[in-house]
Amino acid sequence: MAQQHLDPTDPTARAVTGDALAGYLRGQATEFLRALRLHRETGGGQNGTEESVDAARALRHSARRISGSLHTFRPLLDADWSEEMRPELAWLSGTLALEHACAARLERLLLALHRLSGSAAFPAQSAASAVGGRVTGAGRGVPAPANGRGTGPATPPTATAERGNLTVGAAKAGALLERQLTLARTRAHSTALQALGSSRFHAVADKVAVLASEVPLTPTAASADLRPLAAAAGERLNDAVAALPLVTAGHPYNAEALIHGLSPDPAPHPQDGPWHQVRLLLRLHRYAGEVLHGDDPPLDVRLLAAGQALNLHRDASEAAAAAASAARTPRIAPATAYALGVLHADQRHEVEAARFAFQQSWQKRAVGTA
Amino acid sequence: MAQQHLDPTDPTARAVTGDALAGYLRGQATEFLRALRLHRETGGGQNGTEESVDAARALRHSARRISGSLHTFRPLLDADWSEEMRPELAWLSGTLALEHACAARLERLLLALHRLSGSAAFPAQSAASAVGGRVTGAGRGVPAPANGRGTGPATPPTATAERGNLTVGAAKAGALLERQLTLARTRAHSTALQALGSSRFHAVADKVAVLASEVPLTPTAASADLRPLAAAAGERLNDAVAALPLVTAGHPYNAEALIHGLSPDPAPHPQDGPWHQVRLLLRLHRYAGEVLHGDDPPLDVRLLAAGQALNLHRDASEAAAAAASAARTPRIAPATAYALGVLHADQRHEVEAARFAFQQSWQKRAVGTA
Repeated sequence: MAQQHLDPTDPTARAVTGDALAGYLRGQATEFLRALRLHRETGGGQNGTEESVDAARALRHSARRISGSLHTFRPLLDADWSEEMRPELAWLSGTLALEHACAARLERLLLALHRLSGSAAFPAQSAASAVGGRVTGAGRGVPAPANGRGTGPATPPTATAERGNLTVGAAKAGALLERQLTLARTRAHSTALQALGSSRFHAVADKVAVLASEVPLTPTAASADLRPLAAAAGERLNDAVAALPLVTAGHPYNAEALIHGLSPDPAPHPQDGPWHQVRLLLRLHRYAGEVLHGDDPPLDVRLLAAGQALNLHRDASEAAAAAASAARTPRIAPATAYALGVLHADQRHEVEAARFAFQQSWQKRAVGTA
Repeated sequence: MAQQHLDPTDPTARAVTGDALAGYLRGQATEFLRALRLHRETGGGQNGTEESVDAARALRHSARRISGSLHTFRPLLDADWSEEMRPELAWLSGTLALEHACAARLERLLLALHRLSGSAAFPAQSAASAVGGRVTGAGRGVPAPANGRGTGPATPPTATAERGNLTVGAAKAGALLERQLTLARTRAHSTALQALGSSRFHAVADKVAVLASEVPLTPTAASADLRPLAAAAGERLNDAVAALPLVTAGHPYNAEALIHGLSPDPAPHPQDGPWHQVRLLLRLHRYAGEVLHGDDPPLDVRLLAAGQALNLHRDASEAAAAAASAARTPRIAPATAYALGVLHADQRHEVEAARFAFQQSWQKRAVGTA
């Protein structure tokens, strides 16, 4: 049901061949090189300006699409080249994503702390200093400040009044998270800079430069139909979704997400794994659609909503883990630990809410395409 | 819509006069005296046996019904007598309810701690020692152990294995709550015993004994129609429900209940007040129905579900407050405070879930009776 646009048995659909794949890969490689040039022109990320953040995001954007297409359409591409290329692209986009993830996580946790203190207005000064103005407009599923969730005043109060609304515990928890996640972000920033200056990165960039002009298709690929491979990606997604506990997720307030909230295991909740996996498969499915439909892919609002729910799921899951991890800091005050406990449970609750949202949009999808 | 059975404009309904009210009050007074006799025979609650708990519950049961009917049908009863009687009955049922409430709250919180540690099986030994076996079968909305919420083993493991599943923080939090709520329960028990031996109580009991044979109706009450007064009770309920934020409550995961989760105010959440008020009005509405329909009131499943949701709402709200209050104990370990924070947020989520459940059953009611 999820691959309606990729159905290879649809007789009205035009055949899409390996040429389209080559065109897509060339296009993404060109985007990659453009982003790289922009990145170098803006100081190579040394200054952390908005442009260099945009450039890094564009680099990740193309790297993910090239890597995903290499995976989905593997049989049509030179095997040795593919297998060498994919882990390098994954390393690159993973390394570049980390800094932004830390900043977004801190923003999400500080927003939640303010919401939990009965003050919904955005903690402007504190958050701006925390994320260095870098994530403007790039909030990864972070709710907008005036989202009607709170009872706070409509006009943003001064930072002092804001602080006054936070209890001592919440303020201390916020400061602790700010310290820990800012440190993690700084480290991620250095790692990304080192990566972009490394010979490993230059080797990837050289390969992408070759890809921009010459795609190593197999001899038969140019005339082969892409749709069966794209449909297989859709099938893998459907199978993974079918294995999710969607019946439970569709019952509001099932209290499943917090079930290991006090478990001694510091590792991420194992129950989140299958959802993260579906998130990746959904992305591959979307990229396969881009290859097939070129510049004008049909807009699937429900698929978009499902993907956003899974992004929220990932963000809330990681934020909850960050709160739990901060609570294990030695010698913190009980009030700080209490606030972190409330915050952890709140984020696990958002995990559950994201699963519910995914179930709702997926169900609509299934009904709509049946 | 909520007073469908009390609609005074319904021409098919038989007229119900003050005689029915007198009969109902005499019946409840008789029940009260029977419960009092049972209570004295079982040792006056000194031993805390199951019989004496049942007797105390029966006493509260009748006291609430007499008091509620005095309120709803006030114009038909001797005013001085009513005004003297009601606060005394409220004092009595309030005093008698406290001990059971403490025991049920502890049971609810210990169950939640085990659920949050990924172990859904009932903590048999610990809970039994905590509530002294008194609340058997009297769980006030406490979920059954095997409610499918957990992933724990189906057969109850030994108490040692159970303890092993709890982290240090959760175990310490459980011990702290057990200490505090057991102390509160013991105090409530003594207070109830003192109350039942007091001259104030004997005065109430004497008045109820008179009521069992002679109801002080006003001269015109015997032939007056009860239905307009019962309908007014239904109207008061409807008005109070209309003022609830039901649109928000009907959106799952609205995150409203925890919005003051870290507020410095130790008082109960002010947002809970209107819901508690509706709970009381729903009870008055139900009692008015009992007066009108005698021994055979029509079973309204949705009204029942709405009432149960509001009981859950009250229980979760009070349990959340108990967890927050325990976290303010001086010199507790950070791990204990963290567990109490998670527990507090969990119970506030149950508050939100109860509001959702109420909205769902009330909406069905409104549609069904439209």
